[in-house]
Amino acid sequence: MPAEPLSKAGLQDVIALDTAISYLDTDREQILIKGFDLIELTQHIGYVEMIHLLFEHQLPNTEQVKSLEQRLKDQCDIPTSLWTILQELPQETHPMDAQRTALSVLAGFDQSLHDCSVQANTHRAYRLLATLPMITANSYYLLNGKPTIVTDSSLSYSANFLYLLTGRVPSKLEERIFDLSLLLYSEHELPNSTFTARVIASTLSDMYGALTGAVASLKGPLHGGANEEVMKLLLKVNTPEAFEELLQEKLRQKEKIMGFGHRVYAKKMDPRALIMKRALIDLSDQRGDDQFLRMCEAGENLMEREKGLFPNLDYYAAPVYYMLGIPIDLFTPIFFCSRTVGLCAHIIEQHQNNRLFRPRVQYKGTPYQFI
Amino acid sequence: MPAEPLSKAGLQDVIALDTAISYLDTDREQILIKGFDLIELTQHIGYVEMIHLLFEHQLPNTEQVKSLEQRLKDQCDIPTSLWTILQELPQETHPMDAQRTALSVLAGFDQSLHDCSVQANTHRAYRLLATLPMITANSYYLLNGKPTIVTDSSLSYSANFLYLLTGRVPSKLEERIFDLSLLLYSEHELPNSTFTARVIASTLSDMYGALTGAVASLKGPLHGGANEEVMKLLLKVNTPEAFEELLQEKLRQKEKIMGFGHRVYAKKMDPRALIMKRALIDLSDQRGDDQFLRMCEAGENLMEREKGLFPNLDYYAAPVYYMLGIPIDLFTPIFFCSRTVGLCAHIIEQHQNNRLFRPRVQYKGTPYQFI
Ligand SMILES: CC(C)(COP(=O)(O)OP(=O)(O)OC[C@H]1O[C@@H](n2cnc3c(N)ncnc32)[C@H](O)[C@@H]1OP(=O)(O)O)[C@@H](O)C(=O)NCCC(=O)NCCS
Ligand SMILES: CC(C)(COP(=O)(O)OP(=O)(O)OC[C@H]1O[C@@H](n2cnc3c(N)ncnc32)[C@H](O)[C@@H]1OP(=O)(O)O)[C@@H](O)C(=O)NCCC(=O)NCCS
Repeated sequence: MPAEPLSKAGLQDVIALDTAISYLDTDREQILIKGFDLIELTQHIGYVEMIHLLFEHQLPNTEQVKSLEQRLKDQCDIPTSLWTILQELPQETHPMDAQRTALSVLAGFDQSLHDCSVQANTHRAYRLLATLPMITANSYYLLNGKPTIVTDSSLSYSANFLYLLTGRVPSKLEERIFDLSLLLYSEHELPNSTFTARVIASTLSDMYGALTGAVASLKGPLHGGANEEVMKLLLKVNTPEAFEELLQEKLRQKEKIMGFGHRVYAKKMDPRALIMKRALIDLSDQRGDDQFLRMCEAGENLMEREKGLFPNLDYYAAPVYYMLGIPIDLFTPIFFCSRTVGLCAHIIEQHQNNRLFRPRVQYKGTPYQFI
Repeated sequence: MPAEPLSKAGLQDVIALDTAISYLDTDREQILIKGFDLIELTQHIGYVEMIHLLFEHQLPNTEQVKSLEQRLKDQCDIPTSLWTILQELPQETHPMDAQRTALSVLAGFDQSLHDCSVQANTHRAYRLLATLPMITANSYYLLNGKPTIVTDSSLSYSANFLYLLTGRVPSKLEERIFDLSLLLYSEHELPNSTFTARVIASTLSDMYGALTGAVASLKGPLHGGANEEVMKLLLKVNTPEAFEELLQEKLRQKEKIMGFGHRVYAKKMDPRALIMKRALIDLSDQRGDDQFLRMCEAGENLMEREKGLFPNLDYYAAPVYYMLGIPIDLFTPIFFCSRTVGLCAHIIEQHQNNRLFRPRVQYKGTPYQFI
């Protein structure tokens, strides 16, 4: 028998690895990323700066941000057979599954696929970040029989991404809010998808493999899939009272309400959710339409009162993305695009200092029997 | 800070979950699967019986084996666009990556994709087991610009699988040995790929997603990828002495020798390796060619003497597959096909009694800094 005591289900509170990337410091209420608090960072930097921080281990200066923006524009070549492949997918394919297929296919185009050095992995990660927005948007268009779209290289990384998703050049406020959402989603210690990526990478399998596993994980309704589910719920009714009633009914049925709860924050609000809520307030003010805001607030109050549960980032990201004009099917794929930077940082770290993940089980099956 | 103590790197000895499927009982030297010892089972059953045992929770009678063989023949329809997609992959694509892409694509064809009930999952698993041999063989042929091949439904599951891989109807001995290898690979508690599949499934993501992650994991050279690496090593030289010299040189360079060592068996021989070694002896006898056998034995002795390390299943599976005429690139994809039965059993169990996997980290990065 293994020597260690039985751990809690779902590896709750088990320390699975050492990392220099990030840490949810719940005592000090900080989301530490490379030593900086993510919530503080939202006052100072955008998503592209976060890419630099995670791959170059320090915040960039203005010059470095400019050159990174340029690099991401320059490296966005996509092999044409990828489009042919995406076009062959059945129309019912979930966009997350299309994204997963795309990543899986891209492996074959990487000339140095099995070079897992920091340098090769980092180079690969930049290339993926450069191409994923276009791949994600166009896989959605192809599945829906719509014309594909090309990058507008006059726009910033985030403005272009939002443009690809909506077909419309965003306003300054829209660009700022979308960029903020990418920043908030970028990295978050060891959620299921990041853990998945590191477990896979620990066999010394390549980055694409680790990322396909992470997309599959993120798709799950208990994880990234929650933002889509929240939106579907919000669209079922249209007043705060009806939304409360809907949630009450679900609670009576003992259903889980998507967008609430978090393994680590447990009985506190996800600090990222608060920032996203402010963005929803700004957007609602500017549009003169606070329907979703009021519904969300009603839901938030109800869940605190009834269950002592608080919203997570997905709860407020959902109405924000909807108001930005993004198709609901793309909410989770966007989460993945943003998280790619964090995932790649973790894969790089895993390959750099590796030991195979291989835990044990507690056997609860039939005892030994002769055949 | 999380309350639990720091665990060993790679979650060594940590109990990650409860299972009624299998358990490596190293004290009693048994590989328990549903209460039976895998090594004992090799005397009595074949791979198709193992499928029944894992999905129906008991050994089948003769009638049940026959009807399962038939079911696997009847359900082997493959959407034609899958072939188009595989044809579009760049020629350099690794067969494991092609297999991963195929699984990812298939999700879109599943009409009840998000039904994760035991019944729907089991049905899905049978269908995958029915189609994977043909998908695996033909993705290899397509990548290599060769004509595709179709199932010979007059053959047993394993004979047909081997036929698809080699284009030749196998002899009785070849069929028996190949079937034995599938049985030995079928299920083995919680190796990295099974753990990956369960971690992904715990977000309530679907079976295809969990399996794509598992292929990615199995591809890694520290895991399933080892069988290919072993064969490449064996082919570098052609005498036992030269093979010893090659391994000695690698040890001097502090390189790991693929096919040796195992987290759980550690300093004992993997009992499956012994069975596979016997199959290699049989095959060598019958062919009157014991070159690989003698080389492998020399390597085995050397590694025990020099490092106290023992062969794992991959070490002896490699020369066996080679002598059966299977292309080296297909060794790890075959491992995956066989393990699909175990993986699906674990995914079914995870969905049935789920809690999200979400461990914590020990932060070793820059301490908190003001921006
Ligand atoms: C995120 C989540 C999986 C973390 O949960 P966890 O640490 O595994 O906790 P559990 O699921 O075991 O939940 C603990 C208790 O709180 C309840 N609970 C947790 N989240 C809940 C929710 N969103 N709605 C209703 N009840 C919830 C559980 O039912 C359980 O109650 P019980 O002890 O009476 O059975 C969980 O909160 C959840 O499923 N949330 C909804 C999905 C979601 O929003 N995911 C995005 C996360 S960023
Ligand atoms: C399977 C494996 C990953 C399990 O190993 P693990 O529990 O993680 O153990 P570690 O890799 O930490 O190895 C422990 C020690 O044994 C040595 N070792 C283990 N396997 C070795 C091998 N195949 N060749 C040479 N040395 C080996 C390690 O170098 C290490 O030595 P050290 O303590 O002096 O650094 C490992 O044995 C291995 O890499 N084997 C080769 C790949 C392989 O055959 N995989 C298929 C497994 S079914």
